Amino acid sequence: MNYRIEKDSLGEIKVKADKLYGAQTARAVNNFPIGKEKMPTKIIRAYGIVKKAAVLANFEQNLISETKRDYIIKATDELIKGDLDQHFPISLWQTGSGTQTNMNVNEVLANRISQLAGQKLGTKKPVHPNDDLNMSQSSNDTFPTAMAIAVVIKIEDFLLPTLVDLKVELEKKEEKYKDLVKVGRTHLMDATPITLGQEFGAFAAQLEEIIEILEDSLKYLKRLPIGGTAVGTGLNTKSGFDKKAIKYINLETDREFKTAINKAAGIAAHNSFVNLSGVLKTAASVLIKLANDTRWLASGPRAGIGELKIPKNEPGSSIMPGKVNPTQAEVLFQAAAQVIANDTAVNIGGASGNFQLNVAKPLIIYNILQSINLLVDSVNSYNTRCLKGIEADKEQIAAYLKKSLMLVTALNPIIGYDQAAEIAQKAFKEDITLKKSALRLGYLTEAEFEDYIQPQKMTKANLK
Amino acid sequence: MNYRIEKDSLGEIKVKADKLYGAQTARAVNNFPIGKEKMPTKIIRAYGIVKKAAVLANFEQNLISETKRDYIIKATDELIKGDLDQHFPISLWQTGSGTQTNMNVNEVLANRISQLAGQKLGTKKPVHPNDDLNMSQSSNDTFPTAMAIAVVIKIEDFLLPTLVDLKVELEKKEEKYKDLVKVGRTHLMDATPITLGQEFGAFAAQLEEIIEILEDSLKYLKRLPIGGTAVGTGLNTKSGFDKKAIKYINLETDREFKTAINKAAGIAAHNSFVNLSGVLKTAASVLIKLANDTRWLASGPRAGIGELKIPKNEPGSSIMPGKVNPTQAEVLFQAAAQVIANDTAVNIGGASGNFQLNVAKPLIIYNILQSINLLVDSVNSYNTRCLKGIEADKEQIAAYLKKSLMLVTALNPIIGYDQAAEIAQKAFKEDITLKKSALRLGYLTEAEFEDYIQPQKMTKANLK
Amino acid sequence: MNYRIEKDSLGEIKVKADKLYGAQTARAVNNFPIGKEKMPTKIIRAYGIVKKAAVLANFEQNLISETKRDYIIKATDELIKGDLDQHFPISLWQTGSGTQTNMNVNEVLANRISQLAGQKLGTKKPVHPNDDLNMSQSSNDTFPTAMAIAVVIKIEDFLLPTLVDLKVELEKKEEKYKDLVKVGRTHLMDATPITLGQEFGAFAAQLEEIIEILEDSLKYLKRLPIGGTAVGTGLNTKSGFDKKAIKYINLETDREFKTAINKAAGIAAHNSFVNLSGVLKTAASVLIKLANDTRWLASGPRAGIGELKIPKNEPGSSIMPGKVNPTQAEVLFQAAAQVIANDTAVNIGGASGNFQLNVAKPLIIYNILQSINLLVDSVNSYNTRCLKGIEADKEQIAAYLKKSLMLVTALNPIIGYDQAAEIAQKAFKEDITLKKSALRLGYLTEAEFEDYIQPQKMTKANLK
Amino acid sequence: MNYRIEKDSLGEIKVKADKLYGAQTARAVNNFPIGKEKMPTKIIRAYGIVKKAAVLANFEQNLISETKRDYIIKATDELIKGDLDQHFPISLWQTGSGTQTNMNVNEVLANRISQLAGQKLGTKKPVHPNDDLNMSQSSNDTFPTAMAIAVVIKIEDFLLPTLVDLKVELEKKEEKYKDLVKVGRTHLMDATPITLGQEFGAFAAQLEEIIEILEDSLKYLKRLPIGGTAVGTGLNTKSGFDKKAIKYINLETDREFKTAINKAAGIAAHNSFVNLSGVLKTAASVLIKLANDTRWLASGPRAGIGELKIPKNEPGSSIMPGKVNPTQAEVLFQAAAQVIANDTAVNIGGASGNFQLNVAKPLIIYNILQSINLLVDSVNSYNTRCLKGIEADKEQIAAYLKKSLMLVTALNPIIGYDQAAEIAQKAFKEDITLKKSALRLGYLTEAEFEDYIQPQKMTKANLK
Repeated sequence: MNYRIEKDSLGEIKVKADKLYGAQTARAVNNFPIGKEKMPTKIIRAYGIVKKAAVLANFEQNLISETKRDYIIKATDELIKGDLDQHFPISLWQTGSGTQTNMNVNEVLANRISQLAGQKLGTKKPVHPNDDLNMSQSSNDTFPTAMAIAVVIKIEDFLLPTLVDLKVELEKKEEKYKDLVKVGRTHLMDATPITLGQEFGAFAAQLEEIIEILEDSLKYLKRLPIGGTAVGTGLNTKSGFDKKAIKYINLETDREFKTAINKAAGIAAHNSFVNLSGVLKTAASVLIKLANDTRWLASGPRAGIGELKIPKNEPGSSIMPGKVNPTQAEVLFQAAAQVIANDTAVNIGGASGNFQLNVAKPLIIYNILQSINLLVDSVNSYNTRCLKGIEADKEQIAAYLKKSLMLVTALNPIIGYDQAAEIAQKAFKEDITLKKSALRLGYLTEAEFEDYIQPQKMTKANLK
Repeated sequence: MNYRIEKDSLGEIKVKADKLYGAQTARAVNNFPIGKEKMPTKIIRAYGIVKKAAVLANFEQNLISETKRDYIIKATDELIKGDLDQHFPISLWQTGSGTQTNMNVNEVLANRISQLAGQKLGTKKPVHPNDDLNMSQSSNDTFPTAMAIAVVIKIEDFLLPTLVDLKVELEKKEEKYKDLVKVGRTHLMDATPITLGQEFGAFAAQLEEIIEILEDSLKYLKRLPIGGTAVGTGLNTKSGFDKKAIKYINLETDREFKTAINKAAGIAAHNSFVNLSGVLKTAASVLIKLANDTRWLASGPRAGIGELKIPKNEPGSSIMPGKVNPTQAEVLFQAAAQVIANDTAVNIGGASGNFQLNVAKPLIIYNILQSINLLVDSVNSYNTRCLKGIEADKEQIAAYLKKSLMLVTALNPIIGYDQAAEIAQKAFKEDITLKKSALRLGYLTEAEFEDYIQPQKMTKANLK
Repeated sequence: MNYRIEKDSLGEIKVKADKLYGAQTARAVNNFPIGKEKMPTKIIRAYGIVKKAAVLANFEQNLISETKRDYIIKATDELIKGDLDQHFPISLWQTGSGTQTNMNVNEVLANRISQLAGQKLGTKKPVHPNDDLNMSQSSNDTFPTAMAIAVVIKIEDFLLPTLVDLKVELEKKEEKYKDLVKVGRTHLMDATPITLGQEFGAFAAQLEEIIEILEDSLKYLKRLPIGGTAVGTGLNTKSGFDKKAIKYINLETDREFKTAINKAAGIAAHNSFVNLSGVLKTAASVLIKLANDTRWLASGPRAGIGELKIPKNEPGSSIMPGKVNPTQAEVLFQAAAQVIANDTAVNIGGASGNFQLNVAKPLIIYNILQSINLLVDSVNSYNTRCLKGIEADKEQIAAYLKKSLMLVTALNPIIGYDQAAEIAQKAFKEDITLKKSALRLGYLTEAEFEDYIQPQKMTKANLK
Repeated sequence: MNYRIEKDSLGEIKVKADKLYGAQTARAVNNFPIGKEKMPTKIIRAYGIVKKAAVLANFEQNLISETKRDYIIKATDELIKGDLDQHFPISLWQTGSGTQTNMNVNEVLANRISQLAGQKLGTKKPVHPNDDLNMSQSSNDTFPTAMAIAVVIKIEDFLLPTLVDLKVELEKKEEKYKDLVKVGRTHLMDATPITLGQEFGAFAAQLEEIIEILEDSLKYLKRLPIGGTAVGTGLNTKSGFDKKAIKYINLETDREFKTAINKAAGIAAHNSFVNLSGVLKTAASVLIKLANDTRWLASGPRAGIGELKIPKNEPGSSIMPGKVNPTQAEVLFQAAAQVIANDTAVNIGGASGNFQLNVAKPLIIYNILQSINLLVDSVNSYNTRCLKGIEADKEQIAAYLKKSLMLVTALNPIIGYDQAAEIAQKAFKEDITLKKSALRLGYLTEAEFEDYIQPQKMTKANLK
């Protein structure tokens, strides 16, 4: 294989001829042969946005030439588009500041610009990976800035719309089944009636609230530490660099990022990510219940609850012919469980900074991006391949309702809890209907019973 | 010991003569001899608020007599004040809906009212524990309502003020030490300079953000499911009960609670608590770093970092005479770690509802209240007994700063990263000062060096 | 209130006259007003064992007089019995080494001995809290020694017998229902048949394995760091103290504790506790499934699965008359969830040592003791109040079995998976029996069908 | 692109012409477009071992022809070697039983055999993916069997040797520095002396214990549920299949797997994996301390503790020239934190089975394999690139030791704790040496002081 020589402050090192990265990247590949996880390309591309905004701000502050600016813009545009993805070989599991990835970005851009300018690779001409491409920057402020950009875009463009889609589909089901009365269940035991629409509606409302909470969390993520450089003081920046850089980030991303309320805090800690992860696990807890309720209501077909019929997407079993399983619900459950677990990693990472720097940045961003990915994909898949195709089994639902003893609850205001309990207990013990039990006990006439016990009406009391 | 007989729908049972609870409480004491943890009194007293509000709403809806209303108000006022605390013996570890505690409340109030009315205990006269005291209610909606009331009060009256106090003290330190320049540290290694004031200020800013996030979370907690009764439909309530009850809760607590956007959702899931727990663990991660930075900066006295002197509150060691340890920081760390762990319990509990009811309510509220308690107490103690008494060791700080190699960073814009690196490496290798190294390498004159390397100026670049 | 003056190396402090503790305890009460959790009495009493063993070893090494020895034995015997419990007011949330509790023990013993010897309290006569009662010891080695003693006793005397009882009861159910054939369920969907006995038996086997794993974990807990004093080197001990002290610990506790393989490791880290906590959460995961399977199989009574009938221990609902809920299963679930959460605290605590000392000892021991307590109590209660009273609903079980489509699986070896699938799908689609479907498709004769499809035989294939 | 038609019990579906998988795999690719994580190849290859063992057992029981057996052996040998890896496109996030992956294996083997036999792809000739390749099997028993095989091999061949290597290197450092006396540190504060060798030795001992615990855990993993088929009863197996299959697994892997003590338990729950994950997180907690102690002892170079010098592997900073960071320790920390987080996923997955099947198998195996991978890689890298190159900074170590006040502890047995405390406090307050303080107070003569205070001797008291 062909190699060239690249150089950094520790000396020379060989680099594959067809790769645009330089010495520090090559060292990192050797030094961190760890795990299968690479630094996510979402971070690489977000870093392109940071580098582009930085050069524009530096140019506006007369710190860099127009020629260099134009080269850097050209190269960062390629980076942002994903054209340079193959030059980023470094493991996720690297230094806790993401320095190796920042230098990977700087080196690839420098070499790409050497190509564009007709210079030899490795000459650091016409732009230098540190002096030009890292101008007014440090890994310590740019890496968390790239983290925030990547996460905000992923949430706003993918996770929120996915959750909205799910909410909309749940609301459709709420509407469709708004009059289908069924037995409610508390403690897994038969309870007072609801409509199937209400059952879906309770989930729709939870989605609505989760979306609201998630939107709250974006405010904190949008506060960027860029301009803080190494320790938050902004050493080696000209006053105003931070706001100018963010102006260009907003231009590029069409968002409203702001300056961190304290840059040192945004470098030494990642509370906005720890908080976000808390919101993601809250969403996960909603989705776990949705997955579980779905599969329990669809359990059977003959020895389960069987109130819902879900789509048959694949043969369910390698041994049991004809079996259909709630596979989308199982995926949604597993994905959500992973999100809850990932939160533990974010917590430990978030709590582990010392002094002026948190050095668990790769750990934090890996877990958060995986969580978001899993939520987006599993919710989309569940929505499309399961929820949309769900049908009520109306006969089964009606059969349960008819037998339910908890309709007796409507009698509390009429005859009191103690007599109502007597009716239910007698019905259960003698395996008879509530009405029969009530009449035998002589607590109501048949007409009264018919008047008070109307399941449909019992679902309409006071819901919203 | 003296006993009387109490009765419920399962039959008769003995109750200690001097206790006001009834049959269901007695059963629960027998049935749940589990753990040392009792249902927190904060929940009991919050339940008093719920019961009082409910009777007022019921009276407004002409469902209960003025006499009963007045008795119930009198008894609930005693409950709210804590006068009846000794009648609540049930374990925290009970049914997942908190039904035993709801009935404990109903029974104690009923018997207290029997006393007030000169009736015998256990007669359920003049008010009945179910028919009157549970009127328009179920455990399923009132228990989470009591949970929310207890938590909101505890946060607004204790946790937020405690965090504000900590922030204020940090800001005082920020001001006091705003000009005391010291070595910054990233990756635990010497980095570019900051002021000690900035170091405290970064924590003050984090506290400010945490307070903001915590305030966001209250909005969701203030949405109450009361009026949903058993499954969210409001069965056995008269339309409008929910809003009336909340009106009285607000009157009693001087807050602004609202109706849940969907009562069924507020009974079947506890997302606002899961989210809150995520915020608490975010606060915990900030506090862990604060505890750690404190004790590391105070480490020594002679073989550590030793930049800070903390108060000596007690002899530190049973064997090492004269030892002083950072005990308040250790407590803050341990309390915060517990908060992170408790979040796992809340997550599992929050994800474990089925159908119309989450049955991990005691688990959830226990962990959240313990977390809040621990945060309040440990932050207060750390603030009072450690932070307020912290003094800088100015000589130690100055000595480190003088030796720091990372001041070289200020030369990047002048001579470029590569030459600056050479200066630092030579200084380190030959154990000489930066200036000596720079001069020997001939990259700057002494005057230039003095001009560019001004630690104080390096801390003022671009912080906020 | 009456006070006396006590003194330590920081000076004088007031102590309540009726308490036996001294200056350091009084300071700790003031310095750690944190949380509601006290240092568990199990630790206090285990500390008594340590102190008694230490004085016996010291006497054997001629370091202390016979008089002092006898006084100390008398006082520690009282401590071990629990007679001095009321003199231990310090919060759990104290210094991470447990030093305050060690000194609380030393002070109470010294003052108790002053009483016994007719000396005034606070004179430290005839024995000194540090020089005599802490002789050859440090908090750093004695606190984890007391932790291990407390935990081992609690596991061997309570947790293991409780788990064995549960296993035995499950085996009884296995035997009782060994021939009651029922539908199996995988993915919550009907699957090939099992017996109800097999269903209980699978849990019995899991308990057997958990017991085995738990017993493995004791080996590591039994390695005690006593004799290591402050940093594991055994400074201020005479050679051989460690083994002698452990000899006396074994005499007192009737166990087989050993010396840590490396005392420094046993002080700086608590891997045996982190590992134990991992075992406890494994047990918890088994118990969660047991709790869940119990309540699902007992769900209904009319709109659930309803294969099992569980005892009615209390009225289930404050609003729904006659309702019975699976409360013991809900408690078991919640307790087990807490154990899983506590494990997170132990992990963070266990990972947080620095250099020669882990300073999360109170955090670790609190969570582990709470976990053990909750497991013991909730398993005992579930076993006694739920499992023992469980009865099969044989009619319901038979009805499900008869309808099950998955009996078709037995035809795979005869007609192949693809044709078997056709039979099942047709039966499901046309809502007919498997036999009817098979015959209509002409894949088997009725005689063949009867021969191959024998549910009872299908459960006997190859289980163990 | 070229396609062919494949068929399963749900009908026809297109498959890429160059792929060997069939209809169910194609469906799974469409149905589970979730996350970036594929089913690990380690599971695929372990499945090859299972399928090979199964056909050999089936042949031994006269259930399959010699011709089919030979074809299957040939194809599984290719699978085991990894030659067929590219035909396994299914996401990790699939049904909780791993059925899609089992069928992917069956389909690829069937088609590969069609190729070998000169048949057209998709004909299921000469062997059928269900009837032959799944003979005597279900996903439910074979997937956890493959999980266990993959994990046991990975632990025995990679993780254990890696941990042993680390232990050996720690022991080398223990030996090398066995006489280098240094200040001990407890609570981060100066404590009584130790040797640097003892400091490394405490870690070596922890590794020794972790290895022992890990070996314990293998016993449970080696109990395989194969032969249980769908629900543990072994339906569609001939008696003895289980033991025969395991005999061939042992032949192929050169291990000692055994039959599960209860196959139903091994399908419905995965306690051996939950327990293993607990052991891995225990190892992680040891490694976190190792990583932290390493970087703290190496902190500086001029404003930190600086007792150790670690290798410079790369330029540490993009902005601070000449900076070197403890990157390997940071990676080790992050990897270990991920392991602790993954344990949460395994716990939730492990607790989430219902009835006869745990459907979180992919979740569990993904997290465990990632944990093992990360431990192996990060420990190897830390060992090679950091630990081996560590050198003591003897001057720094000596300077600290000389100043330490905690040497006073050796005076406790001579002059008592209270007077020793006085000496230390005076020395600290007046910033003088211990000796000077002792002499000024007149508690000892100079000769006595020199005799009692010998740091080297203080480290030799009673360690092992």
